[in-house]
Amino acid sequence: MRRFRLLLLLFLLIFALNLYAQQLVKPKNIILMIGDGMGLAQISAGKTFKGQLNLEKMKVVGLLTTHSCDEYITDSAAGATAMSTGYKTKNVSIGIDCNGEKRETVLEYASKIGKSTGIVVVCAITHATPAAFVAHVPNRNMQIEIAEQIAKEANADIYLGSGWGWFLPKSEGGRREDGQNLIEVMKKRGYTYISKPEEFYNLNIDKVNKLIGLFAENHPPYAPDRKPTLAEMVKKAIEFLSKDKDGFFLMVEGSQIDWAGHDNNSEQILKEMADFDDAIGVALDFAQKDGNTLVIVTADHETGGYALVGGSVNDKKVEGKFVTKNHTGIMVPVFAFGPGAGAFAGFGDNTLIGKIIFEYLKK
Amino acid sequence: MRRFRLLLLLFLLIFALNLYAQQLVKPKNIILMIGDGMGLAQISAGKTFKGQLNLEKMKVVGLLTTHSCDEYITDSAAGATAMSTGYKTKNVSIGIDCNGEKRETVLEYASKIGKSTGIVVVCAITHATPAAFVAHVPNRNMQIEIAEQIAKEANADIYLGSGWGWFLPKSEGGRREDGQNLIEVMKKRGYTYISKPEEFYNLNIDKVNKLIGLFAENHPPYAPDRKPTLAEMVKKAIEFLSKDKDGFFLMVEGSQIDWAGHDNNSEQILKEMADFDDAIGVALDFAQKDGNTLVIVTADHETGGYALVGGSVNDKKVEGKFVTKNHTGIMVPVFAFGPGAGAFAGFGDNTLIGKIIFEYLKK
Repeated sequence: MRRFRLLLLLFLLIFALNLYAQQLVKPKNIILMIGDGMGLAQISAGKTFKGQLNLEKMKVVGLLTTHSCDEYITDSAAGATAMSTGYKTKNVSIGIDCNGEKRETVLEYASKIGKSTGIVVVCAITHATPAAFVAHVPNRNMQIEIAEQIAKEANADIYLGSGWGWFLPKSEGGRREDGQNLIEVMKKRGYTYISKPEEFYNLNIDKVNKLIGLFAENHPPYAPDRKPTLAEMVKKAIEFLSKDKDGFFLMVEGSQIDWAGHDNNSEQILKEMADFDDAIGVALDFAQKDGNTLVIVTADHETGGYALVGGSVNDKKVEGKFVTKNHTGIMVPVFAFGPGAGAFAGFGDNTLIGKIIFEYLKK
Repeated sequence: MRRFRLLLLLFLLIFALNLYAQQLVKPKNIILMIGDGMGLAQISAGKTFKGQLNLEKMKVVGLLTTHSCDEYITDSAAGATAMSTGYKTKNVSIGIDCNGEKRETVLEYASKIGKSTGIVVVCAITHATPAAFVAHVPNRNMQIEIAEQIAKEANADIYLGSGWGWFLPKSEGGRREDGQNLIEVMKKRGYTYISKPEEFYNLNIDKVNKLIGLFAENHPPYAPDRKPTLAEMVKKAIEFLSKDKDGFFLMVEGSQIDWAGHDNNSEQILKEMADFDDAIGVALDFAQKDGNTLVIVTADHETGGYALVGGSVNDKKVEGKFVTKNHTGIMVPVFAFGPGAGAFAGFGDNTLIGKIIFEYLKK
């Protein structure tokens, strides 16, 4: 009888500690996935188009306001900076706060404390969202300077995206008028450079130390015409980063959902949402197996004032309309999965993303 | 030493059971609050206008698809029926499923098992959303029949809203051509009837057995010109219902957010959101003190394809635009607070509301 009571106690204790641990645990790996311009309408359309989203596996949901320091409607630079640093900033600013002060990014900090870090996007890596994690400039249009900071100062271990034009001099088909070949600079810093899809597919990830893969001079085309796809790049990046026993931080952007919104192109929103959701599936598969990875999916803002005025669930069709060619001020959802996910439930503003990631890194 | 270890075990055990209980507990009282036409844009606008919403106290967030049996874009009848019965139905149907079969509502079931029940709205109580909890007709426009079902068959203990015209014969200023005075029918069934704000404010709630308060012939005006307000009615209803030691089910509707959307009237959306959020505050205050009340806040659909194309957080101003005068197919958020709230996290469809409420009632 006494033994039975002790056993019961033990059982309840283990159960309790398990529940408790879920609330306290610090994730080893963090994957932050930003759907640029991905409001709730875009997600709803994506769900109709795909039937079932990988995103739906994420049970923790929050809602974030996105206003920047100086504008009700944020741009991607201020939105990404809020998430990368935990500080609000003015529109078009990258990696600096409202007063122009340089702020450390979660990627920089993760790298400093010995984690591997990466950036995977389907735009030039000098574009606003990726730039906000690895550069510090007052204006997102300073892509020449952003490329220089990435090449000479930033410490991400893997970059997959595009925009080699920003790294090469005009004499070599690039955009730089200062004559610098920043790809050569990066090679000297230990990076392997690839620029062709076949190089990507044939790459033995175990043989590279650091990697930069840029698959278009500036931006790649709309989905599904991109090779490699976002999902393929995320898979490769996770394969690479997860070798680090100290863990990793990876930022992934579904960059072109936003552009389809600016174009008021509902059909393309569906394709970009499907593409981004494929990448979410890859991240969640890894997180599920790994058990020690926090995946966060969110958006920097909504684009287009996109509305679903008709459609068919059976035919997977959506009739979309737009009120603007610009961004809107509607709150964006945030989704989280894995240890520490609970912190993202409920209402907040976009600096919450940076603040919580910093908190987990510093624990 | 042995005693210390036992104490520690005990402490951990209590902590564990507490955590465990939060996940398993069955709420005694359930308050379901439906913001008609309240999409994420409407909530975002309301937040800018009010600065801080009571809604923000709700940490559990989910997202619901709202498609009806026969249409991508639901109407309020099919949306409310999904929530009241847990079954999808065709647009304009009330309290019946896709095949036309009558389905029990959560209010009816709650009443059957001995809980007190109530309906509080700022429209005629014969309108689609309230009707779906107490009536069963193939078309929402059958308000003459809905009134008859409410008067003769339904069992809610308290109705606060409007629409006395549907209950009275033409000879007494009402709309009924069948000569019936349904208010008299209800009085015979034990209801106290009030129709003037002063009657409401002077009412001694302890002296009524059942209550029907209808403060306009059909619908009341837009906020803030309504007397009593939704918040005042919710307060009174909770005061009344919470006397039942067996618990209660209350359905509350912020009915006119939808109408401001149909009118493409952004200013009015702000006022209706503020009005609905005041009522949410009353419900959450009660739930917080009571500790045994689940509050659920959601919407039946979004109205207007409302988008925030500008605004000012400091000035609490929003510049809103619309793509349509009708409903849209964007998912709606659901928020939950209190015991059992966790079941509403993540993705689902609108039948989830009815299914989970039934589950809690049947536990």
